[in-house]
Amino acid sequence: MRGDGLYFVEGALPETPTGGAQAEAWQTTRVVGTRQPRIDAYERVSGTAVYPSDVVLPDMLYGAILRCPHPHAKVKKVDLASARSVPGVRAVLAGDSPEADLRWYYTRQVFTRLFDATCRFEGEAVAAVAAETPQQARDALRAIRVEYEVLPFVVEEGRALASDAPKIAEGGNRVGEPEVYTRGDVAKGFSEADTVVERTYRTAAEIHSPMELHGCVARWDGPKLTIWETTQGVYPVQQRVASLLDIPLSRVRVIGHYMGGGFGSKLSADKYHLVAAVLARLTARPVKLFLSREETFRCVGNRPPATMRLKAGVKKDGTLTALEMDVVGASGGYPAGGASLVDWLVRDLYLCPNVKCTSTDVLTTTGPARAFRAPGHPQGAWALEQLVDELATAIGMDPVALRVKNVPALSQGRDDLPYSTTGLKQCLEEGARAFGWEEARRRAPGRGPWKRGVGMAAGTWVAGAGGPPSTVIVKLGADGSANLNMGASDIGTGTKTVMAMVVAEELGVPLDRIHVEHADTGTTQYATASGGSKTVPTESPATRAAALEVKRQVLDLAAEELKLPVAELRLQDGVVTSLKDPALKKPLAELGGLRRRGVVVGVGTRAPNPEDLATCPFAAQFCEVEVNERTGEVRVLRFLAAQDSGRVMNRLTYDNQVIGGITMGIGLALTEARVLDGAQTGRLVSGNFHDYKLPTMLDVPADITSLPVELPDHRANSTGAKGLGEPVTIPTAAAVANAVFAATGVRVTDSPISPARLLPLLAAARKEG
Amino acid sequence: MRGDGLYFVEGALPETPTGGAQAEAWQTTRVVGTRQPRIDAYERVSGTAVYPSDVVLPDMLYGAILRCPHPHAKVKKVDLASARSVPGVRAVLAGDSPEADLRWYYTRQVFTRLFDATCRFEGEAVAAVAAETPQQARDALRAIRVEYEVLPFVVEEGRALASDAPKIAEGGNRVGEPEVYTRGDVAKGFSEADTVVERTYRTAAEIHSPMELHGCVARWDGPKLTIWETTQGVYPVQQRVASLLDIPLSRVRVIGHYMGGGFGSKLSADKYHLVAAVLARLTARPVKLFLSREETFRCVGNRPPATMRLKAGVKKDGTLTALEMDVVGASGGYPAGGASLVDWLVRDLYLCPNVKCTSTDVLTTTGPARAFRAPGHPQGAWALEQLVDELATAIGMDPVALRVKNVPALSQGRDDLPYSTTGLKQCLEEGARAFGWEEARRRAPGRGPWKRGVGMAAGTWVAGAGGPPSTVIVKLGADGSANLNMGASDIGTGTKTVMAMVVAEELGVPLDRIHVEHADTGTTQYATASGGSKTVPTESPATRAAALEVKRQVLDLAAEELKLPVAELRLQDGVVTSLKDPALKKPLAELGGLRRRGVVVGVGTRAPNPEDLATCPFAAQFCEVEVNERTGEVRVLRFLAAQDSGRVMNRLTYDNQVIGGITMGIGLALTEARVLDGAQTGRLVSGNFHDYKLPTMLDVPADITSLPVELPDHRANSTGAKGLGEPVTIPTAAAVANAVFAATGVRVTDSPISPARLLPLLAAARKEG
Repeated sequence: MRGDGLYFVEGALPETPTGGAQAEAWQTTRVVGTRQPRIDAYERVSGTAVYPSDVVLPDMLYGAILRCPHPHAKVKKVDLASARSVPGVRAVLAGDSPEADLRWYYTRQVFTRLFDATCRFEGEAVAAVAAETPQQARDALRAIRVEYEVLPFVVEEGRALASDAPKIAEGGNRVGEPEVYTRGDVAKGFSEADTVVERTYRTAAEIHSPMELHGCVARWDGPKLTIWETTQGVYPVQQRVASLLDIPLSRVRVIGHYMGGGFGSKLSADKYHLVAAVLARLTARPVKLFLSREETFRCVGNRPPATMRLKAGVKKDGTLTALEMDVVGASGGYPAGGASLVDWLVRDLYLCPNVKCTSTDVLTTTGPARAFRAPGHPQGAWALEQLVDELATAIGMDPVALRVKNVPALSQGRDDLPYSTTGLKQCLEEGARAFGWEEARRRAPGRGPWKRGVGMAAGTWVAGAGGPPSTVIVKLGADGSANLNMGASDIGTGTKTVMAMVVAEELGVPLDRIHVEHADTGTTQYATASGGSKTVPTESPATRAAALEVKRQVLDLAAEELKLPVAELRLQDGVVTSLKDPALKKPLAELGGLRRRGVVVGVGTRAPNPEDLATCPFAAQFCEVEVNERTGEVRVLRFLAAQDSGRVMNRLTYDNQVIGGITMGIGLALTEARVLDGAQTGRLVSGNFHDYKLPTMLDVPADITSLPVELPDHRANSTGAKGLGEPVTIPTAAAVANAVFAATGVRVTDSPISPARLLPLLAAARKEG
Repeated sequence: MRGDGLYFVEGALPETPTGGAQAEAWQTTRVVGTRQPRIDAYERVSGTAVYPSDVVLPDMLYGAILRCPHPHAKVKKVDLASARSVPGVRAVLAGDSPEADLRWYYTRQVFTRLFDATCRFEGEAVAAVAAETPQQARDALRAIRVEYEVLPFVVEEGRALASDAPKIAEGGNRVGEPEVYTRGDVAKGFSEADTVVERTYRTAAEIHSPMELHGCVARWDGPKLTIWETTQGVYPVQQRVASLLDIPLSRVRVIGHYMGGGFGSKLSADKYHLVAAVLARLTARPVKLFLSREETFRCVGNRPPATMRLKAGVKKDGTLTALEMDVVGASGGYPAGGASLVDWLVRDLYLCPNVKCTSTDVLTTTGPARAFRAPGHPQGAWALEQLVDELATAIGMDPVALRVKNVPALSQGRDDLPYSTTGLKQCLEEGARAFGWEEARRRAPGRGPWKRGVGMAAGTWVAGAGGPPSTVIVKLGADGSANLNMGASDIGTGTKTVMAMVVAEELGVPLDRIHVEHADTGTTQYATASGGSKTVPTESPATRAAALEVKRQVLDLAAEELKLPVAELRLQDGVVTSLKDPALKKPLAELGGLRRRGVVVGVGTRAPNPEDLATCPFAAQFCEVEVNERTGEVRVLRFLAAQDSGRVMNRLTYDNQVIGGITMGIGLALTEARVLDGAQTGRLVSGNFHDYKLPTMLDVPADITSLPVELPDHRANSTGAKGLGEPVTIPTAAAVANAVFAATGVRVTDSPISPARLLPLLAAARKEG
């Protein structure tokens, strides 16, 4: 769980905050749980929503970054003279510019500066310019002359550990010591097994590819910096920028109202923030610096590739006796959690007394890894869920039955802490029933080149409980309309809508009378980044606490005004009513006390999670594919996702998340791979949307069923919600791989299952067969 | 105290809000009371501050309003056809456009619509356009053909009451019944007097003339309207716009971060807001609508002219026996408080058992009156303080001594409620001493045409206590920097700075580590408009309560972390210290609990004012002038303002207010007058800065002394501040008039004391002499 790029570090699970009204579990809800379109749907669809990439300020300059074309090099000399004379250029920076003399990444192993003399991946920043137009900025980049000493590269995590591999950091390429997890005795476990299977799997690196490119606009007002940024968390960006520039938080304002996707790649500040800030300070003008799509392929993160050796033992009756996993993950040019959490499913998903996992994180001369929707988990699921499938085949048991047999009630990876709720068994059983699993399994693969098969896989997510800190403010206006103020970003998942629904639920204010202010460090208050499937379970209880605090104050005002005991009063649908007098109906807007005060303010904080319980989402997914044995083409025909994410807050955005997660998982399974030229240059060869294949509408089935197994987790928090965004993409690729096996009898251990990879395996199988 | 244009209506003094930490009176202060430059000085001076008139949105149109050229007319027909075909025109509106069918002003007496068929003043809105450029918008206005039925006009308040005066409203021109105030028996009082003097005074109408013109930018996002507005109160604008458009408050966001002056003319929504909103909705594009300087002279308010008959009786020993005042004030085309508060000084400034005041408000065919810095008071002071001067002369008493003799301890205008504090006596005595009053009085007027004289006058302000409602939120960030969130506008007086100083005082956070978010209905919470000299005494106690609530929570966190009783801990200069252990020093930024929570939020509300006390500011001002008896020119040589406004919060902005108030008072005394052509057209003839003479640097002395008589009013509120902005301009003009009398022996009863007015009086005096 180490790694700078990841966000679920221990510090993010803090001690108890105080304050916030206590809340009882919802027994029934009127708004929460319904299907509600996004409250900002109009703005998003009509184009009036101002994304950071839409921000245009008067007198604004355009920044651009010169990037190293080699995967590993030393910058010997940068000649900026010609660039300075390019028309429109207003500032030029490189490693020896005093204004750019800022630290960037620093651990014991790797210490770098903003423009470092050592470039550890293709695309590392070497120099930057600001000019009147983007075109002039790019012209200026071309005029910069850099002398590099090209160093040997290593782009594969397996190769990087070899003794003769090029060294990327002092002390070698291994990031710290391997992380070893053990419980029980795996040797004993394997000896007790009736069947032992061992396989090595590999997942390719994936690129986040959000719709909106990475970038920001930076403007200084005297000593104060404002950054408009497409980010998952304005506060982490503020903190890192303030820290690196060594100025107080109050002088850095980060605004991120809308953002076009991040998937983990926009969790904190990047180099371009600092470059834009320095250029803006130097020129005393606003600077817009957005990366090109090609730059984002190289520089702003990836799901790190993992090589996973997995060995499992099982008894004939389906009892798992031992699991052993070795993971080697690639951090890229900086220590960035390359192997993080890949082993989590092995540790925690199934009952197993004997487990050993060894995770080794290595530096490679590639772009740094970053958290990517459910870091580590889809990789681990790719290995574990394929191997469990093989075990089931080996012992002649239905894969669903094998999994159901091994559903744990305790989190073994957390020293047997009981789960607050677990719907894994229901996901497996209800999912199988709804999918028609048994009937589908019995169907023949079909004749001709197209073979059909069904597959399934399960998953859990290490986090998803949410937790402190979160502080949300709800304000009720004199006419009974409301204002919801929270620091969290809405990364496209509908956070604003869900939180407004919580306010609507508690105060009876219609959704269209709630204004949401969010994701602006100047106008809201601290929130952690939106990621880790923790936003809804973190922010919704805080929002509920704030709304309840408003309700408490409103009922106090009403009691005073009506001269009735407060215990007798209720607030429903924006009307104060009495338990004793059915005739009493006082609409909020007619409450004199509220009118005269103009506003009632409630502050809610997220209460801490129970220490004696583990809270996690669970999933079981089922799919049907057809595979063309002649062309190697795979078509996903239908998908069903049975998810336990606690209470469903908004059924519409819930289903949207399910569709998105499955789409992304199909990408991992079938199409996406960062391809590097490991032979000659070490450079990226799939650096655009033609060569890096995101699944399109044609690659994803129309038939996707979202089946929430709804178990409001009221032991976890006051809204009973658990995370959804990541769990929904964890088992997907493995389910596809298992379906491909069911259709063809061929196991593809390396992602993606492309025709180029599948065809030789099919040919080999035919030869064997 | 009636009138739509005024803000001190009864509803603004509401009942008790709850919440907010209790505060003890400050015994010593470290930040409050010092001289602090405005925290936004850099932005204001460098031009980076974005005023509403600077707002430019993509795809924005420009709006313009066609205004009636007659002071009184009926619109018979509006032909928009030619205007529609002007290049660039995107929308055209007039009274019969369904989109513009909105009510505007409605009382029993006057009910009008946005584009009303009856125009009651020159400049009334008749039609409007939106076009691609401001030039095209103006071209389109010229293409609109309007057929008017011109009606007879009446521009003088005295004339408007005559039985043959043209009727402006059904039922006549008098606005309601005259307001009569009496105490004691004036007839008896006059019979007891040794000297009775009676005079009639008149003050000319003044135009507010703020530096930034009136206007706004309006943009719709689907059902939501955002208005960028140069206003003294974003919430009053929001409320009126929402009410007139009949939409919830949550769908109208008003942003007014910077504004270039208002002086009362920007307290609430104007017609141009509605016009901009309707044009923007009609075109589905943002619309910017800023008035020209010429329009603001006619349409956005004025200090109403007042005719004041005042009669006073005094005994030889200086005891006032009776005061009687008749006021006729001009509301303009709508009922707007034309006579409001003109009599307040007569009611409340001096001890006097027998008082009768009759105030009559009349409609005239002129632009509507609006609150103008200390509504009514400078007019009333012009009369009262000149007459008191005459009484002093008549009984041979020093004018200061006469006033000191009649300083009350009770507010007679409020049924003898005791003042929480009164520094009137100190203002008079310390002011006289510091000015060198007695010596200066003894000096001869000098030879040659330039005659010197000194004059003085006193004043009080009806309000200035502030009061609920106000809700302020203070947030302390993890690094010990702070965020202050308040709804109030900073109308140029330094409100943001003063409130930041309160936070700095309580939390020890340096001023440059405090970010202020204010005056945005989307991001802050309800506040009343900034006006009435109530902003500091209203907002500063709420701010202090919020800061104290933060302090309480921080000390709780520290006590938990340090395992010490909270009563032992203190927060000073951003460091937690112990009363028992001098070695303990825990900086805020090192407090683990704060770091982990990310923020501590305190909500403060303004506690109610004590019901058994009256809280008012007081003033005594002294000046020396020289008057050229040949040219009638008056030069103010020096000025001293002794002010009791409770605690001085920021000595620098305090002095700024004093200088500004005196400058404005000199304008009333010497230069400013709205001149109407009462003979032929009824139209404005001083509609620009050449003909309407604001005092310039050359008209104001360099020698202005600000002498705070500092009496923190801790019986009034927790910061002890009283209002300053208005009291400082109340006695100014009268002091100048008294000095002119001292220099020349001539009393000028009508403002301004222009050469044209003064010369005939001097000539007449010479003839008499």
